[in-house]
Formats: sequence, structure tokens, C-alpha cells
Amino acid sequence: MMTGASSYDPPEVLRHAHPRVEEMLDKYQSSWDLPGISRGLTHQLTTGGKRLRPSWTLWLAEHWGANSSSAEDFAMATELLHNVLLIHDDIEDGDRYRRGQKTLWVEVGIEEALNVGDFLLAEAYRFVGQAARQSPSVGYSLHETFTTVFRQTVVGQALDLGQRADPHFTLRQYESIVRQKTGKYLALGWVGAAHLAGREADVDALWAVGEEIGPAFQIRDDLLDLTPGKGRGGEIGCDIREGKPSLLYAYSLERGDLTSADRQRLIAIQAKERAATDDAEVQWVIDLYHTCGAVEFGEAESRRRIEAGIEQFELLSSQDSDGGVAFRAIANYVVERKV
Amino acid sequence: MMTGASSYDPPEVLRHAHPRVEEMLDKYQSSWDLPGISRGLTHQLTTGGKRLRPSWTLWLAEHWGANSSSAEDFAMATELLHNVLLIHDDIEDGDRYRRGQKTLWVEVGIEEALNVGDFLLAEAYRFVGQAARQSPSVGYSLHETFTTVFRQTVVGQALDLGQRADPHFTLRQYESIVRQKTGKYLALGWVGAAHLAGREADVDALWAVGEEIGPAFQIRDDLLDLTPGKGRGGEIGCDIREGKPSLLYAYSLERGDLTSADRQRLIAIQAKERAATDDAEVQWVIDLYHTCGAVEFGEAESRRRIEAGIEQFELLSSQDSDGGVAFRAIANYVVERKV
Repeated sequence: MMTGASSYDPPEVLRHAHPRVEEMLDKYQSSWDLPGISRGLTHQLTTGGKRLRPSWTLWLAEHWGANSSSAEDFAMATELLHNVLLIHDDIEDGDRYRRGQKTLWVEVGIEEALNVGDFLLAEAYRFVGQAARQSPSVGYSLHETFTTVFRQTVVGQALDLGQRADPHFTLRQYESIVRQKTGKYLALGWVGAAHLAGREADVDALWAVGEEIGPAFQIRDDLLDLTPGKGRGGEIGCDIREGKPSLLYAYSLERGDLTSADRQRLIAIQAKERAATDDAEVQWVIDLYHTCGAVEFGEAESRRRIEAGIEQFELLSSQDSDGGVAFRAIANYVVERKV
Repeated sequence: MMTGASSYDPPEVLRHAHPRVEEMLDKYQSSWDLPGISRGLTHQLTTGGKRLRPSWTLWLAEHWGANSSSAEDFAMATELLHNVLLIHDDIEDGDRYRRGQKTLWVEVGIEEALNVGDFLLAEAYRFVGQAARQSPSVGYSLHETFTTVFRQTVVGQALDLGQRADPHFTLRQYESIVRQKTGKYLALGWVGAAHLAGREADVDALWAVGEEIGPAFQIRDDLLDLTPGKGRGGEIGCDIREGKPSLLYAYSLERGDLTSADRQRLIAIQAKERAATDDAEVQWVIDLYHTCGAVEFGEAESRRRIEAGIEQFELLSSQDSDGGVAFRAIANYVVERKV
């Protein structure tokens, strides 16, 4: 099902959109000279990242023939929102590294990081407004879509925080969190592109695609957390240290067939304060996730959901086969990536 | 110039609008049952506050005959944005009490406080969207106004944070910060009401009114910080403890005719870490602000700007005398208030 070369390289359509996104972001971040904001903004926006959301949005918008200027604005809005939520996530989780760089709150302090976040959020809405003004017939839809997704993602994040170290965490609870937190978030740009291309009829189906691929993406993230590839300054198992309610944790408790001693130890390590959890404990949990079948389950589950999402995408009204092939390539890249 | 009774009681027009605002907020905050959000949201929205922004907005909207449902939505948006910025301010400043209650980050932790803030911001934009949908001819203006003011206020806050404990702080620098931080912020609801009432011609003049009354309001806040009335759990001089670049600090350095020893001591206390600043030092600075004329200057300056703002309001196109009298009463209340 892969589209040649290594399945871990971004597919052609993303490689094509990516430089446009980088150019937009470079131009954007260098346009500011604001004390207390510019330095943090540049740090945040130039520390890389896959630019998956805006690239995917630009490709779809182009493929569907949407107004390219509005699509660029909306794509920028999705990338800025993403960065705001990353800034807040890193503060909430106490994460010190992301993408191999210091997180913003470590670089400039929590105070300045909050201001940069607020600024970027105002800017995200400015871009939504620009897109809306250029495409007034769908202006309200763009605003409402953006706001609904922002809100739902925050509700999911709150659920996630609230179930840290839950000793009775289930796969059903995981599903509820991951749907809230990621179900609409990845699809935000696609839906924006659909509105801009006059494809209102496809919007509900696109949300359904997102409800499969968003969680698949998150599950892949849960799995990558067990490896050194996540850009966390070499630290592995951050989710374990933070007691995050991951798919792996839910599977182990519910279907891992653990001995009573292993179950107690897993729960105890998950519940420990981050700073008190040592590397040997983290490694013990990682080994347990492998031996009890949680990793295998996670890999199968992320692939299953990617396939389900792709199939739903191929059912979109008047979807052509070129688009389907490209969408499949991106979705596979998302779930096969190693970073 | 006062409108009877004690000048510290809210004027009739605010007393009339205030219960509507409280009712909207009660109905709003009780409509949620979201884990990790509702409790903090209720704490934040039920700890009082003067509700000045939404009440002032509702009165003006009614006075000008704007669509009342849209005006209520926009007024809600201003109040929610205000609460988001208070949540972030309190984290940034390390403030533990506001309005006589624990600040949100103290009550629920920084993690949950950030989520509540994000949720309220999404909600603020949802209300902007609702107002825009009901009044589509000015929908884009409402969105742009809200976003521009949000952004400018954050830029001002960043300047404020960046000039903490500046030993060469000037009145000119204070003016630059206070204009960015408060110049448009207080006028946001008025301008929204003007758009909704079809008074586009008044918008520029309303911003000019805000550029006088917003700073007057902030200067009053700087003065109230020297007294126990600010609801900070009895603590006075928080701005001094935090090294905030206040009008009083700028005046003392620039025009206070301080001895070299007093100047050095003032700068040193301003520069000290919050926790290291003791009550005797704070009292010494407060006494200095009184003896060197800073307090007197601040009081005169806030009154001067209130008068300038009122005069500009009375020049609005087709402004009637009833509206002018009521606006004057509110503005005087704002600057004469003791809490």
C-alpha cells in the first residue's frame, strides 16, 4: 500500500506543500519586532515540527481548487493554534524539550511563554478573519469550525490531565479522551479547505475521517514516546513519567493479563511524581508494554484506524482517484513516521 | 459633576445593567459539566468583579438601540476575554488573591487554570461568532475589533512584564505601556455596541475616548494598590513587590526630586524578588510616593484623563445629552471607586 521509497519519507504532495508553509512561517515570524514577544515567537516557530497540518491543508485546498490565499491564511491559523496548544501542553506537562529544542517556557520563562501564546492565538484568529474576509460566503463557517475545534481539543486535554495515574483506566476511557482531544483537531484544516472549495457536502464525512486518523496519529505518538526519536532531549517514556493515560496503559490494565504484582507496580510507577520516577522504572514499564501485548495492540490499532479513515475519505462525494492515492500516502506516512 | 448620592456607588445605568450581566453569567457557568473545566470556570466567574465592561457595553447598546441579543453576546465575549487575561496575569505575577478570593491557579493549579483559560477564550470567540451571525452586516467588524484589541492588550502586557524594575523608567515609557495595555481594552465593548447600532462613524472617536479613560482606569488601579481595598487578601503594594512599572514609580524617578539615597533604595526595592520584599520596605515606598508628590500627580492625572475622555464622548456624532450625563457618571465612578 506504500507509495515507493521509504514509507517514512513524507510523500510527494507533502514535500511539495512543505516549503510554502516554511516560507509563510519565515516571512511571518520575521515581520515582528515586539519586546517580550518576538524572541519567544521566533523560538517557537523556528524549532521545526513536521508542519503536517498546514501542509496537508494546502495540498487539499489546491487539489480541490479553493482560493489559495484564503487557504494559506487558514493553514497559518491551524499552525499557530497548534503552537499555542503545544506551548500550553509543555507547561502543563513540565516538558523541557520538544523537537530536540528547549520548550518555550524553559527558554523564556512561563510569564513570557504565556504572552507569546496569547499573541499567537490572537494572530491565529486574525488569519481566520483574513480568510473569512476574502471568502465571505463561508466566513462564518470558518470562524465556527475553528472555534469549535479549539474548544473541543481543550475539553479533551482537560480529560487527559484529569485521568493521570488513574488505577482503573480503561480502553473505553482512552477512546473518549482521544476522540475529544484529537478527533476534530487533525481534520480542522481539511474542513477549512472544504468550506473554501465549496464542498460543504463533504464536511461531515471529513470529520468522520478525522475521528479515525486523529486517534491513529495520537496512538502513534504514544508508541513513539517509548523510543528516543521524539525529540525530548533523549528522554524516553515521558508519558510514563507524567502518568499520562495512554492507550498502552489502558490496554495493559484491561487486557494485559498482568500478575497482581506487575499491575500494582505499573500503577505505582504511573502515579509517581515525574521527578521521582527513575529510568529503571520507566524501562520496566516499556518492557512490560512489549511483553503484555500493548505495543502490538497499539500498532495494529493505529493501522486499523488509518485504513478506516482512508476508506471513508475515498467515499467522499466526487472524490477522484489521484486524491485518494495522495491522501492514502499522507495518512500512511503519519502512522509509519518515526519522529 | 457627580450624579448625587455617594460618587462611589455605581451610577443608575450600571446598576440597571449589572443584574442582566450576572444573570447571563450565572446561566452560562451553570450550563457546563466538563471534567477539569467546570469547577475552575465556576470559581473564576463567580468570584465577583465589577462586571464593568459588559454592563457598560449593554447600557450603550441599549441607549443606541442596537440588537440586544447580539449586544449580550458581544458583552459576554468581553467579560470572558477579561477573565482569560486575569487568569494569565495572576499566573504571570504570582498573585495569590484577587477580589478577596484565591486566584484560579492557586485554587486548581496552573495546569487546570491554563485549560480553563483556553476554554474561556474559545467560548469568547463563540460568542463573537454568535453576535456576528445575528448581525451579519457587521460580523467581520466585530471579529476584527475583538481580535485587534486582544492582540494589542497582550503586546502591552508583554511591555509591562519586560520593564519590571527598570531603574530608568520614565513617564513616557509608562504612557506607551498603558496605551497599549488599556487604550483599546476598555473601549472594546463600546466599539462593539457602536458597530451593532450602525454607528460606524463614531468608532474612531470611541477609540480616542478609550485612550483617555482606559489609562485613567489603570492609574486608579495603581493608586488602589497602595490601599487594602483591592481584594488581595489584605496585602498592599503588590505592584511594588512585583516591581511593576507603575505611574507612581515613573513619576518618583523622573519628577520626585529624590535624594540619591532614596532613589537607590526605591530602585533596589522595586528590583527585589517578590518573596524577598518585606512589609516595611513596601510601606517605605508608599510613604515616598506620598511625600514626593507621585500620589497627588496620579490622582490629578486620572481625573484629567477622565475629563478629557468625557469631553470627547460628548462630541460623538448626534450624541444626546442624556447619554452624555450617564457616560459621565460611569466614567467618574470608574475613577473615584475605592475597590
